[in-house]
Amino acid sequence: MGKDRLEFFSDGVFAIAITLLVLEINIPTHEDLHHAGGLYNYLLHIWPSYLSYIMSFFVIGVYWSNHHHLFSFIIKKTDHMFNLINVFFLMTIAFLPFTTAILSEYVLDESSHNAAVTIFCIGYFLPIPMVLIILLYAKYKKRLIDPKLTSAFMKKQIIKIVISMTFMAVATAFSFQYPVVSMCMIIGSFALYFLPPDMPQYTEDN
Amino acid sequence: MGKDRLEFFSDGVFAIAITLLVLEINIPTHEDLHHAGGLYNYLLHIWPSYLSYIMSFFVIGVYWSNHHHLFSFIIKKTDHMFNLINVFFLMTIAFLPFTTAILSEYVLDESSHNAAVTIFCIGYFLPIPMVLIILLYAKYKKRLIDPKLTSAFMKKQIIKIVISMTFMAVATAFSFQYPVVSMCMIIGSFALYFLPPDMPQYTEDN
Amino acid sequence: MGKDRLEFFSDGVFAIAITLLVLEINIPTHEDLHHAGGLYNYLLHIWPSYLSYIMSFFVIGVYWSNHHHLFSFIIKKTDHMFNLINVFFLMTIAFLPFTTAILSEYVLDESSHNAAVTIFCIGYFLPIPMVLIILLYAKYKKRLIDPKLTSAFMKKQIIKIVISMTFMAVATAFSFQYPVVSMCMIIGSFALYFLPPDMPQYTEDN
Amino acid sequence: MGKDRLEFFSDGVFAIAITLLVLEINIPTHEDLHHAGGLYNYLLHIWPSYLSYIMSFFVIGVYWSNHHHLFSFIIKKTDHMFNLINVFFLMTIAFLPFTTAILSEYVLDESSHNAAVTIFCIGYFLPIPMVLIILLYAKYKKRLIDPKLTSAFMKKQIIKIVISMTFMAVATAFSFQYPVVSMCMIIGSFALYFLPPDMPQYTEDN
Repeated sequence: MGKDRLEFFSDGVFAIAITLLVLEINIPTHEDLHHAGGLYNYLLHIWPSYLSYIMSFFVIGVYWSNHHHLFSFIIKKTDHMFNLINVFFLMTIAFLPFTTAILSEYVLDESSHNAAVTIFCIGYFLPIPMVLIILLYAKYKKRLIDPKLTSAFMKKQIIKIVISMTFMAVATAFSFQYPVVSMCMIIGSFALYFLPPDMPQYTEDN
Repeated sequence: MGKDRLEFFSDGVFAIAITLLVLEINIPTHEDLHHAGGLYNYLLHIWPSYLSYIMSFFVIGVYWSNHHHLFSFIIKKTDHMFNLINVFFLMTIAFLPFTTAILSEYVLDESSHNAAVTIFCIGYFLPIPMVLIILLYAKYKKRLIDPKLTSAFMKKQIIKIVISMTFMAVATAFSFQYPVVSMCMIIGSFALYFLPPDMPQYTEDN
Repeated sequence: MGKDRLEFFSDGVFAIAITLLVLEINIPTHEDLHHAGGLYNYLLHIWPSYLSYIMSFFVIGVYWSNHHHLFSFIIKKTDHMFNLINVFFLMTIAFLPFTTAILSEYVLDESSHNAAVTIFCIGYFLPIPMVLIILLYAKYKKRLIDPKLTSAFMKKQIIKIVISMTFMAVATAFSFQYPVVSMCMIIGSFALYFLPPDMPQYTEDN
Repeated sequence: MGKDRLEFFSDGVFAIAITLLVLEINIPTHEDLHHAGGLYNYLLHIWPSYLSYIMSFFVIGVYWSNHHHLFSFIIKKTDHMFNLINVFFLMTIAFLPFTTAILSEYVLDESSHNAAVTIFCIGYFLPIPMVLIILLYAKYKKRLIDPKLTSAFMKKQIIKIVISMTFMAVATAFSFQYPVVSMCMIIGSFALYFLPPDMPQYTEDN
C-alpha cells in the first residue's frame, strides 16, 4: 500500500494543529482592556501567550520536519497496522494546542505554574515514544523501511530517540518542583533541532 | 473523472475533523481551578475529556484508514453523483467533534449520561450506512470499482458493513437504558479494527 | 503556471470551511439543559442547527464539486490575476460558516428570522458571481481554458450561472418579507444539483 | 530533499489560517441584538468585521500567491534548515487571524484604535522579513534556487522585498499617532498586488 495518502493526511493534521495554536491567544474583552490599562498594555502583557505560541509552533514544526525526513529516507511503504500507529502518533501531535493553551494561561500564575509546565512537558514528550514505535514497527524484518539502509544507521536513529525520550522524561520530572529548569531544558533542546538530521547510509552492495 | 481531488478533499476533511477534537477539551478558567482544587487536580479530573478525545481520534482514524483502503483497492474513478455521496459521507465524519464534545461533557453527569452515550453511538453509527451507499453505488454495474475484483470479495465487504451497522444499532439501542453496555460494545469494536482489512481478490482472467 | 497548487489550496479551504460548520452547533451548558428539560430534549430541540449544518455542508460540497468539474474539464492553467480571483471566490466560500451560524441560531426567532434567512441567502448567492468572473476571465481570448472546447458549450455554462444568480437574487429579495419562500427556493435548488454538470463538448478539428 | 511536502504543508497552513478568519466574525447573542436594534441592524453594524475579514483574506491570499510563485520559479529544493525557516515564515502567517480579530473588534473603539491598527500593521509586516530570509538563505551559493536564474533577477526580487518591508515599517510607525494614514497605506499597497510578479529571467547559456 502506497504511503502517499498517509503523508497527505499527516501533513493535514500537522498543518491544522500548528495553525490552531493561534486560537489560544485570547482576544481581549473590554473588561480585559480595562484591567490591563488599554490595548497597548494588554498586547504587551500577554507575552506568555506569544512565547507559548512560538514554542509550540516550533515544536510542531520540528516534528513535522522529522516526519518528513523519516518518510523521505527511511519509510518506504505502509500497511494497515502502520496506518493505525501513525494515527496514534498524530493523536499526540493534535493534543499540543491544548497543552500550549494551558501553558500560556497559567505559566505566570504562582499556584498553577508547576502544573502548567508539567502538562506542557508531557505534551512535548508524548510524540517521542510514538516515533519510536513507528520506527521499531517499520524496522522489524525490514518490512516497511528502505532495505538498503545499514543497520548501524537504523540503530543510531533509535538511540537518538531513546535519548530524547529520557531527556524529556527528566524535564517532566523537574517540572513538579523546578519548572524553570524544565523550561530551560526545553528551550535548550530547541537549539539541537537546528542541526540537520543524519543523512541515510546505504549498504555497499547497493 | 479522476478520483485524486476526491481523495484530497476527503483527506482534508478527515484531518480537520480529527484535529478539531482537541478544541473540545476545555481550557480551565480560574474558577474551574478553584472548584477542582488546583491545576494538577483539574487535569486529572477531566479524564473523560481525554478518553473521549482518544476514542474519537481512533474512530475517525479508523474511518480514514478504511476510506484509504477503499479508494486504494476498490474504487477506481468517480462521477458527479458519487462526489455528492462522498460529501454526505464526510458530513457524518465532520459531525463527530460535536458528539465527542457532548460525551466528554456529560458522560459523568448522572442525569445526562444516557443521552450523552446515545448521541455518541449515533455519531459512530452514521458513517457506516454512508459507506454502504458508497459501495453499493460504485458496485452497481461495476461502474466505479475495479472490474477485476471478484463478486465474492465485494459481497464479503458488504456483509461486513451490514454487520457493523447492526452492531452499532444495537449499541445505540442499549444506550437509552444501559449506557455502560454501549460503551463496552464500542470499546470492544475497537479491538476488531486492529485486524487488517481484506486483501482484494481478483478474477483469474486478469 | 500550473494549476496544481491552486486546486490544492482551494481544496484545503473547501475542506476547512465545510468542517468548521460543526463548530456552529452549540455544546449545551448545564443551564441550557435545565431550560430544555434534559439532554435528550436539548438534542431534539436544536434541530435547526442540524438542518443548517446539513444544508450548508451540502452547499459547500456542491460548490466544491463544481469547482472540481470546472478545473478538470475547462480551466487548464492559471496566472497571477487568476490566482487572486480564485482567492476572492474562496473568500465567499469561507464566509459560509458565519451565515450558517446565524441561520441556525435565529431561524426560529420570530423577530430575527427574516434577517437570518436574508444573510443565509446572501451567503449562498455570493460565490455565484465569483464563479462567473472566474469563467469570464479564463474564457477571454481562451487564455486559460481548454482551447478545444466549443463556444456553444462555454456559452451554455455562462447562461447557467447567470440563471443561478438571478434565482438566488430573487430568493434573497423574498427573504425580507417571506423567508419561508426563500427557504423553499433554496431547498428546491438543491434538487437540481443532483443532476450531473454538462459534459464538455470539443470542436471537431481536435 | 524534494520540496513537495514543504509546499503541501505550507498550503495547508495558508488554507487553514485564511479560513479561520471567519471565526473572528462574532455570532451575536440575543443581548447583542437588543443593543443593536435587531439582526438586520446588527449585521450592518459589524461592517468593520467584514472589512477586516476581506483585508486579511486578501493579505493571506497574496502571501500564498507569492509563495506559490516563489516555489514555482525560484526555489528548486529544500534542506533541513530551509524547512525550519519556512516553519518560522508560516508562524507569521498563522498569526494573522489574531491581529485581524483585534482590528475587527477595536478599530472603531476610540481609546483602542491606534493599538488595533498597530498590531494589524505588525501582523502584515512580520511575514516580509521572513520571505527575505527565505530568499537569502536559498540564494546563498545558489544552493536551493534554480541555478539558471540571472543575478539581476534575484537582486530585483530582494530589492522589492526590502522596499515592502520599509513601506510597512513606516505604516506601522504612523499607526501610533495616525492610524488612518496606516490604513490608507495598507489599502494602497493592495493595489500593487494586482500587478503580476516578475517573470523569471534565465542566463543565456541555458
